[in-house]
Amino acid sequence: MEKLHVKVPAVEAGGYDILIGGGILTDSVIAEFVADRRVMLVSDENVERAGILDGIKVPSGCEKFIISPAGELSKNISTVTAVIEKMEAAAMGRDSVIVGIGGGTVGDMAGFAAAIYKRGIAVLHIPTTTVSQADSSIGGKTGVDSTMSKNAYGCFWQPRGVIIDVRTLKTLDERQYRSGLVESLKHALIRDAEYFEFLETNVANLLIRDEPTLIRLAAYNCRIKAAVVEQDPTEKNLRRILNYGHTIGHAVETLCDYTLYHGECVAIGIVAASMIEQRIGIGTRERTNRIVDVLLALSQPVRIPAQCSIDGIIDIIRRDKKSVGAVPRLALIEQIGKACCKDSQWAHPVSTDIVQEVIAELREVGLE
Amino acid sequence: MEKLHVKVPAVEAGGYDILIGGGILTDSVIAEFVADRRVMLVSDENVERAGILDGIKVPSGCEKFIISPAGELSKNISTVTAVIEKMEAAAMGRDSVIVGIGGGTVGDMAGFAAAIYKRGIAVLHIPTTTVSQADSSIGGKTGVDSTMSKNAYGCFWQPRGVIIDVRTLKTLDERQYRSGLVESLKHALIRDAEYFEFLETNVANLLIRDEPTLIRLAAYNCRIKAAVVEQDPTEKNLRRILNYGHTIGHAVETLCDYTLYHGECVAIGIVAASMIEQRIGIGTRERTNRIVDVLLALSQPVRIPAQCSIDGIIDIIRRDKKSVGAVPRLALIEQIGKACCKDSQWAHPVSTDIVQEVIAELREVGLE
Repeated sequence: MEKLHVKVPAVEAGGYDILIGGGILTDSVIAEFVADRRVMLVSDENVERAGILDGIKVPSGCEKFIISPAGELSKNISTVTAVIEKMEAAAMGRDSVIVGIGGGTVGDMAGFAAAIYKRGIAVLHIPTTTVSQADSSIGGKTGVDSTMSKNAYGCFWQPRGVIIDVRTLKTLDERQYRSGLVESLKHALIRDAEYFEFLETNVANLLIRDEPTLIRLAAYNCRIKAAVVEQDPTEKNLRRILNYGHTIGHAVETLCDYTLYHGECVAIGIVAASMIEQRIGIGTRERTNRIVDVLLALSQPVRIPAQCSIDGIIDIIRRDKKSVGAVPRLALIEQIGKACCKDSQWAHPVSTDIVQEVIAELREVGLE
Repeated sequence: MEKLHVKVPAVEAGGYDILIGGGILTDSVIAEFVADRRVMLVSDENVERAGILDGIKVPSGCEKFIISPAGELSKNISTVTAVIEKMEAAAMGRDSVIVGIGGGTVGDMAGFAAAIYKRGIAVLHIPTTTVSQADSSIGGKTGVDSTMSKNAYGCFWQPRGVIIDVRTLKTLDERQYRSGLVESLKHALIRDAEYFEFLETNVANLLIRDEPTLIRLAAYNCRIKAAVVEQDPTEKNLRRILNYGHTIGHAVETLCDYTLYHGECVAIGIVAASMIEQRIGIGTRERTNRIVDVLLALSQPVRIPAQCSIDGIIDIIRRDKKSVGAVPRLALIEQIGKACCKDSQWAHPVSTDIVQEVIAELREVGLE
């Protein structure tokens, strides 16, 4: 038997810029980015209806794909296929650019289409929601759902740039706007105590969508998210702290059949994590209360809806990607602004009993 | 406007082994590779019918997906979706391995499924045809066709290993076996004069599928292919020499509606390239004749079928990925074993007139 070795060369470090401002989409930022390359603009009917697409400057002759219906229902391989076939029909080459304008699902699909069209082309993300501006547009996760699970298909595919125009947030309805701010709270909790204080003292400014406040918020979020994904781009370990509040949150999201928004479920998940921290001796009641106060000021739910059974939640958590041998593992914090790291691990095994107790308490008796 | 920069860290150099032998699939090589990880075996009905799957040792409890019908007809996104859904239904995690056993289309689909399942899992390639053992199993190109073009969807996704058992070649019918050897001739022409002489003197041994000869052939091919893809993994430049004979070959393949095999079309494309080299002063009639002799000994066509019109071929070549401003660009050689490099470029503009003349000569008058 002969044996040969094929070397796969190193890939050099790279990077991309995030531009943050208010009203910048009406300037020439997109045109400067795409230069003379052909553009496929991917967006959805919500963004179109909100008038965001009318207000922006796009290169003339750009192709356009409007996802309909907007949201998770369209986040599947058929939509990505349709985007790619439209690009093919327009004979777009490898030097084309996909510009994704919208929330997380638009970004995930635009990024995934870019990752697999002709073995990979450039993508520019223009997030327009509180969630996507804080979180999903940075870090290169792309993907679509299968009939069985979320993000079953996907790639890590880094964007060539991200443009955050906080003015687009004014188009969101109150519930979508507020629930998306929970991802910002999450960032503060895992990485930055000063940011948490900024949130505590600026809730009123956030609620009126004050532009300077939103620009500062975006800058905080991007700095934190960037620092985390730079250290662990493919989620081997550290990046798991971004899952703070998401393990139990995802379970609630599934069990309530998506009647609660993602951010609302994460709010509940953060409270649950905080109570678990108390029980294993790394949290305090005062800390939980401080967090709950911010969530309530943002009109977020902090209790598990009755329709979510304890067993149902436990079952889903056990099948979570982070679980090892059916023992739940959660991202946790040891103080506000500091995620917990033990034996170089950022996701921590928690006994099913403790998780069960906390769920029971949050669900039935409520929080005292 | 605020501007932040996100660093994308470098990816370290890596690599993978290629094992080459006769009858090695019956040993424990696959089991050693996959260790205790779960396996999805992807193959097609031709491979199954040939009995290759019966003869190999696979880990117990491995899942199996048999592509039907075999070949290009099934090379689409629906097949990849079906593979992924089967993995999901079996609750296979990120540490699973896809093992692709078959020709180029199986490898392309197995590799693509691995690239996009849960943002990327391991793939082991076990090529079973002359083409895939020489060429497509090495280098990380994966993808599927759209209704409009070949490999419209895809990723670069490096395998974790390649196992080449030349005994599987004994299951191929004569035409498939021989036409696949054209990729070996191509490797010799672009990189290795000694290898070309080996082919000239070993045609008889190749035709009887002598195992030691096939093992030497595989080793030559893998060394050449590995050397090229190591220098240019994502086909920015050098890797284009692997397209030798393919530009005109692909056009013929399309215009004859795939009634000729890929290798047969590449044979014609190689002869055309050789005649173009004569006309632009970097080839000789003697060299073309030497190449044609090997092709004829392998029963390969060396003339363009009458059904392919000159205009049709020119039109397709102009839309080739390598074309710039509708001027055809071809990989060429300056001597046997040495691809042509000019101004650091490995694909060369050739005037449409010359291409037209050569096509006319090859098509109507034949080769003198």
